[in-house]
Parts: sequence; structure tokens; C-alpha cells
Amino acid sequence: MRITIIGSGNVATHLAAAFKNAGHRIVQVYSRDAQHAALLAYHVKADPVCDLSQIDLETDLFVIAINDNAIGAVAEQLAQYGKLMVHTSGATHMYALQAFSEQVGVFYPLQTFSKTREINFRNVPLCIEGADQDIVKQLTELAQTISNNVYPVDSDQRKILHLSATFACNFPNYLYYVAQQLLAQHGLDFNLIRPLILETAEKAQTSLPAAVQTGPVVRGDQLTMDNHRKLLENHPDLQQLYTLLSQGIIKMDIDLHADK
Amino acid sequence: MRITIIGSGNVATHLAAAFKNAGHRIVQVYSRDAQHAALLAYHVKADPVCDLSQIDLETDLFVIAINDNAIGAVAEQLAQYGKLMVHTSGATHMYALQAFSEQVGVFYPLQTFSKTREINFRNVPLCIEGADQDIVKQLTELAQTISNNVYPVDSDQRKILHLSATFACNFPNYLYYVAQQLLAQHGLDFNLIRPLILETAEKAQTSLPAAVQTGPVVRGDQLTMDNHRKLLENHPDLQQLYTLLSQGIIKMDIDLHADK
Repeated sequence: MRITIIGSGNVATHLAAAFKNAGHRIVQVYSRDAQHAALLAYHVKADPVCDLSQIDLETDLFVIAINDNAIGAVAEQLAQYGKLMVHTSGATHMYALQAFSEQVGVFYPLQTFSKTREINFRNVPLCIEGADQDIVKQLTELAQTISNNVYPVDSDQRKILHLSATFACNFPNYLYYVAQQLLAQHGLDFNLIRPLILETAEKAQTSLPAAVQTGPVVRGDQLTMDNHRKLLENHPDLQQLYTLLSQGIIKMDIDLHADK
Repeated sequence: MRITIIGSGNVATHLAAAFKNAGHRIVQVYSRDAQHAALLAYHVKADPVCDLSQIDLETDLFVIAINDNAIGAVAEQLAQYGKLMVHTSGATHMYALQAFSEQVGVFYPLQTFSKTREINFRNVPLCIEGADQDIVKQLTELAQTISNNVYPVDSDQRKILHLSATFACNFPNYLYYVAQQLLAQHGLDFNLIRPLILETAEKAQTSLPAAVQTGPVVRGDQLTMDNHRKLLENHPDLQQLYTLLSQGIIKMDIDLHADK
């Protein structure tokens, strides 16, 4: 397929590389920033472009991988060319494109990308939505050329997915940060806790989280919880967070027993 | 070394197996529950015992891997034999043993164990404390026979470590549960989000969490945050948690900029 990448951020970079590696042709990479466009274009053997009026029409698909709040404006400009266009945003409804065209869809890779980290795209879940069944089919086939995990997900489901991703990725990473800060404040090495972080995530790969919950809360160890809260007495915000998360775990335990 | 394991839970099971694999002799496995004692003893070719009065004195070390609140009572009974004894608890001060003997220490493996999951013990951080330098040396040498990650950690530091572990393991696992429940309530597969969970933890293996924080909060994407909170309007507890975690991430971002 001939693909034009709109954007040069983390998602654009990883998607462009995955398409290129799967044998697709990246026609152009667009970014407002000429240097960013040039860098990514170089990596995927495409032409860089930093003005939407210079878009090459010899393409099959526009992949709009830019900030959520800019998607509408870019889609409005691209719509005139009558090509299939998709956005890659978890938090944006397909309406953002449908307002301007019928040839639209969503191609949402559910992963956290860093430019400096290699990722095996075949394991990345790709969530597909299309304005009609033909588009869904076309995008699904494209998705399968780069990933083994392709799912049909409509806009309402995708909202929930994006919210869930915030709980499963952004918030745990913040808690790693809290742990790292507590350790650093007491002269302890973050390496002490890294294997624990990894094992916790690996357990979730084969088990449901409720089945492998450990710790003082789920053991009902009130003494340890009190000690923990006391250690946090100079961090009232963390103390409040500790209490709220503990209450959640207590409720989780009750829910589990209610299921039995 | 000749080692007696007191306990038959997750920590006792994994430690006993690691000692056995490293060539140590497990003399006895004690559990109040005869069946539990027999099962673990069978695996590590030891004698099971369910009465502390039947403890074999031909041993070098008692490893007390039982519930925190039972450590003191068991230590009191074992102290009469004048052997070196350690507990394996993150949340328990060495005083719990020192009250009864001078030949004491702590041997705390910082990992989350499940009986059904194999673990490479060589990667498990082992935190060592001893009542005197000679005991520290002896326990460190023992620890190095089963792990490549042996750290001296005193009781006050260990408290912080245990608290940090709660933030880095128990609480993230609870957030995985929240994500899984949200997905399930909308007919979505937890597999959609498993690669994201793993990648987030893998990033933390080589980066500091603050350097790889992603998501709407760190992007200052107020619209998405408002939408997320609206999706949670039937879950006031989760809404509150979302707000508190978001505030933490906002503050984290500020701290980062303050560092520059």
C-alpha cells in the first residue's frame, strides 16, 4: 500500500517503520517542523514535506498521527483529496474525521511508544474502526501485515480502552516514580525494586490481576498499613493516595468473595 | 549450609527451592499444617515437622518465613537452641528476633512470589541485615549462593523498601484490576491491554519513571482528562482515584522542570 504519514511523533515514527518493514511504501512524511519531517522521512525512505499543500496525491492512505486537538483541522484540509484517511488516537471519536469525509477510519495502536525504544510491532494490539464495512476490511488487512493482534473496536469502546490504558500504564508508571522517589530519599537504589515491577507486570500476562493481588492490604495486615501511613506522614498527598488505593483493594477482595 | 525452613508459604517455598538448588541441605520444613509441611519437605528432600518441639538441632540456620505477626512467638521458642535465625519479612524490624537472641538477622527477598510461578532466584534482590558484622558476612555469603543481587539494608531502610514495594507492585496490580474491570464491563478483552502493561514495566527497567511518563495528564490534555472523568461518573471512587493520581503526575512534571 502507498501510505502518507501525517506527523513525526512517537506513534508516527513507530507506525511508519512498521509499515515500511512490512513492505509498504511510505510516500511522504508530513510535519510542520521541517527537521522532524526530514528525520523520519529519511528513516523510511520517504519524501519529507512541511506544507499540507505539497501533499503527493499518488497515495492510498493518510495516517494522521498528530496531537488529538489538531486532528480535525488537518482532516479538513486533507479531505479534499478524496483519499482514505485514518487517525491513530485512542481518545478521539471517528466523528472528528467523518465531519469532513466518508472515507475514514481509525487505526489505534494500543501501546506506549518512546522514540528511543525498539518495539516488536507484531505484539502491539491494533484497534480498527471504519466508516463502512469495506473500510474495516481494508484497514484490518493492512493492520494484519504489521501486527498479530488486530481487533475491531468502535469509538465508544475505544474511549473505554483509552481510559483503561491510563489506569494500566500512565498511573502505574507514576506509582513507580513514587517508589523511586521514596527509595532515593533514603539512599536506596531503584534497582532494588525493578525486578518486582517487572514480575508484577509479567504475572498479569497470564493471570487476572485479582487472582494474584498480594501485599498487606489483601492480607488484612492492619499493623503494616498503619506503619506505612506513618512513614508517609510528611507526604499528605501520598498518604491520601495510599488510603484510597488500599480501600480499592479491600473492596476488590470483597467483590472477589462475592463472586464465589 | 544446613538450613531449617520455618513456614510453607510462597516465600518459604521459593527460598527453600533456591537453597536446595544451590547445594545447601534443607534439614526440616516446619509448618503447623502437617500436609503443607509434608508437601514442601518432599520437594526439597527434607523432613517435615509440625511441632516446634521436634526441631532437629543438627542445623546451622533457622529461616523463619511465616506471617509477620507470628514471627515473635516462633523466635521465642527457637531461641533456646542457640542457632542463627533470620526472618524474611520486609515489614518487621530485626528487634522482633533480637528480643530473644543475639544470633539473628534478616534475609528479605524483594519479590512477589506465587507458588505456581517459576522464578529465577538469581535476579531476586536479597536484603541482608545482621545483629553483628560476622552475621552480616555469613548471611551475605549465603545470599550470594542463590542471588546476584545482594544488598545490605538495615531495618529502617527495609521499612521504606517495603513501603516502596507496595507502591511499585501491590498498587499497580490493583490498577491493572481496575483496567480489566472497565474493559470487561464493556465487552473488551483484557488481552488488548496486556502488552501495554508489560512494556510500561520494561521501560522502567532501563529508564527512570519520570523520564518515560506518558498520557493525557503529562501532555496537559485537559479535554481527555475531562472525558475520562465523565466516563467514570458511575464510579465515584475511581473518579476520586483518577483525580488524585492525575494531581500527582502534574506535580511530578513540575518537579521535573524544577530540576532542570
